[in-house]
Amino acid sequence: MPHLVILYTANLENKVDFGPMCRELADTMLAQRDEQGQGVFPLGGTRVFAFPAPHFAVANGQPPEGKEMGFVYLNLRMASGRSADVKKTVGDALIGVLHKYVDAAVASDLVGVTLQIDEIPSSFDGRISSLHPYFNTKPTQSK
Amino acid sequence: MPHLVILYTANLENKVDFGPMCRELADTMLAQRDEQGQGVFPLGGTRVFAFPAPHFAVANGQPPEGKEMGFVYLNLRMASGRSADVKKTVGDALIGVLHKYVDAAVASDLVGVTLQIDEIPSSFDGRISSLHPYFNTKPTQSK
Amino acid sequence: MPHLVILYTANLENKVDFGPMCRELADTMLAQRDEQGQGVFPLGGTRVFAFPAPHFAVANGQPPEGKEMGFVYLNLRMASGRSADVKKTVGDALIGVLHKYVDAAVASDLVGVTLQIDEIPSSFDGRISSLHPYFNTKPTQSK
Repeated sequence: MPHLVILYTANLENKVDFGPMCRELADTMLAQRDEQGQGVFPLGGTRVFAFPAPHFAVANGQPPEGKEMGFVYLNLRMASGRSADVKKTVGDALIGVLHKYVDAAVASDLVGVTLQIDEIPSSFDGRISSLHPYFNTKPTQSK
Repeated sequence: MPHLVILYTANLENKVDFGPMCRELADTMLAQRDEQGQGVFPLGGTRVFAFPAPHFAVANGQPPEGKEMGFVYLNLRMASGRSADVKKTVGDALIGVLHKYVDAAVASDLVGVTLQIDEIPSSFDGRISSLHPYFNTKPTQSK
Repeated sequence: MPHLVILYTANLENKVDFGPMCRELADTMLAQRDEQGQGVFPLGGTRVFAFPAPHFAVANGQPPEGKEMGFVYLNLRMASGRSADVKKTVGDALIGVLHKYVDAAVASDLVGVTLQIDEIPSSFDGRISSLHPYFNTKPTQSK
């Protein structure tokens, strides 16, 4: 953990630069610090995935002429135990990055962007990784 | 919120008409009314995404000759707070729409369709949108 | 239920054999037995979906020359009510299968693989299926 999963309507493929957006979202996650100045997320466990939906429906599907309706949904799943302040800081930082990438599409078309943070307790947490050893980081266990 | 995410085995691409199905599911969500006659879901926040899985496995993977095994999983994620009656009405309405689109494939092949409704409390809920202002709707906050 | 959803960075498409991996993961799920010797998962309700993410970011995005950074995230969602022992046995069995398919990529590149098991209570559980009748299995209801 953590991971950030992005689901988006495929009609936004050429309106939002998803590849660089993933990179900057990951970099922003990695830059987060908690109240003790420690990194909030481990370098070896941080990942962002973005999936275009080839079939979709948004609102009533009837945009004004020349506009499209699209949606970008982002879900950051993290282990529980971080403070409310840390979660708000992380969420606000990611929203800041999103503005840079989506504002043009939000202005030209009818586009919604929603970011949620879930802390879901898992019943099992298994791992195989060459990332944590490489970065000498320790995975955070989900509770 | 809300959103409906559809995961399906890619071998159903030509057996189920996913594009129109997404549209009719969204329209059905938008037509739902609660006990006070209010819309259950906000026009500007309603979206449906469908994702074909290029790799998959269903049951034992050994259908009778000439049949395929496929699956469609639908997850409606909504903010908590709606009544049990409203959730049942919404679920039943969506299942009604699904019958129209999947019954032929369920009859000709071995196909499972499951719809679940999740009310997942989020730790953070951020938004950027030109949809809500356009429709003059208010997002429902997840709790 | 249950289903196993696999999200992976698309750069692993030719490094991990996802199709056969899905099949063997499903077979392994179907082989699980509980303390009473009963099958843990119903034949007609077991499915595995794998989705490549065309856009992604892993860790700092700066692998050593000649290596790639990739991630495979697996989430097994099941109805609640199984014992801690059963969940651990299931998780360990799936990790065992994963080793067979991912160890080469984990060794040659910087790759993380995480499996989590979620027991998420749903507010609604609807089904249309020709799989359960065919296998004469009963769906397990999520609680």
